[in-house]
Amino acid sequence: MDAVAARSGVHRTTVYRRWRDVGGLIADVFAAAADIDWHPRDTGSLRGDLAALNHEIQDSLTAQNSIATALIAVSFRSQEAALALRRLWEDRYAQSECVIQRARGRGELSGGIDSRALLVFATAPLYHHLVLLRTPPDPRLPERAALAAVLAARSGAFSLEDSAP
Amino acid sequence: MDAVAARSGVHRTTVYRRWRDVGGLIADVFAAAADIDWHPRDTGSLRGDLAALNHEIQDSLTAQNSIATALIAVSFRSQEAALALRRLWEDRYAQSECVIQRARGRGELSGGIDSRALLVFATAPLYHHLVLLRTPPDPRLPERAALAAVLAARSGAFSLEDSAP
Repeated sequence: MDAVAARSGVHRTTVYRRWRDVGGLIADVFAAAADIDWHPRDTGSLRGDLAALNHEIQDSLTAQNSIATALIAVSFRSQEAALALRRLWEDRYAQSECVIQRARGRGELSGGIDSRALLVFATAPLYHHLVLLRTPPDPRLPERAALAAVLAARSGAFSLEDSAP
Repeated sequence: MDAVAARSGVHRTTVYRRWRDVGGLIADVFAAAADIDWHPRDTGSLRGDLAALNHEIQDSLTAQNSIATALIAVSFRSQEAALALRRLWEDRYAQSECVIQRARGRGELSGGIDSRALLVFATAPLYHHLVLLRTPPDPRLPERAALAAVLAARSGAFSLEDSAP
């Protein structure tokens, strides 16, 4: 609750007045996020789709009073929030798997690919820089992380076969 | 302080008795970490060196009463802790750049490489899974993340040249 108050620039009593406790706040956040009929953009290429995903992540983490950043901060103080956040990410990664399916359909990827591993590799550097290292946003990072993931995937990094390189 | 108490399984008063406030705790943690004459292992290959680095990260984040995890949790509540953590990571990434230099010496990498970007790409999935997604540790992740970074690097993902792929 304190983290949300701090990030929102309001007094903590305002947050407690709106949401009785952290459970209520998290439930609202989770419901709001689930309400959004979210789909990853189709840009016509795997690299473009992953870059678009990363731009969305960068925008949501660097927005003023970012609810994403507040939710992550709260997750370190509340098991309930940690669970809600994990479910939210699980949903988003599941919804994003169509990006890998489309790439397969275009012939950009072939063979058994661990879609989740590829998605985590493409997006993790954004969270690492913006949430953990707390470096200023780098406008080129969304594209660079997407490119690195695509090049690794094309070289067989996320192959499901035992004969991975 | 609460996060450290919770992670350590002791009462918060015990933590407050030992360290008067979060600044004192962080200063101690930072001093202890700086004391360690840490160097990344030389395994004979870039892939091996990055995997060894990732194993160290995985071990430190999954240890009982992990000080790394506690420090990350506290960093969301204290600017002082966030700054100390950022400095600690800055040190570790700087100390790890010799891994890239050694790879260059062995002929595993050539041309201008953004060492920091490569190191972040190799290590970010560990933090993403263990700190943010809070998934159970995957014993294969240290090697897989290392491999993905090496394959991406060999394909030119972290090239400093403008003519990056």
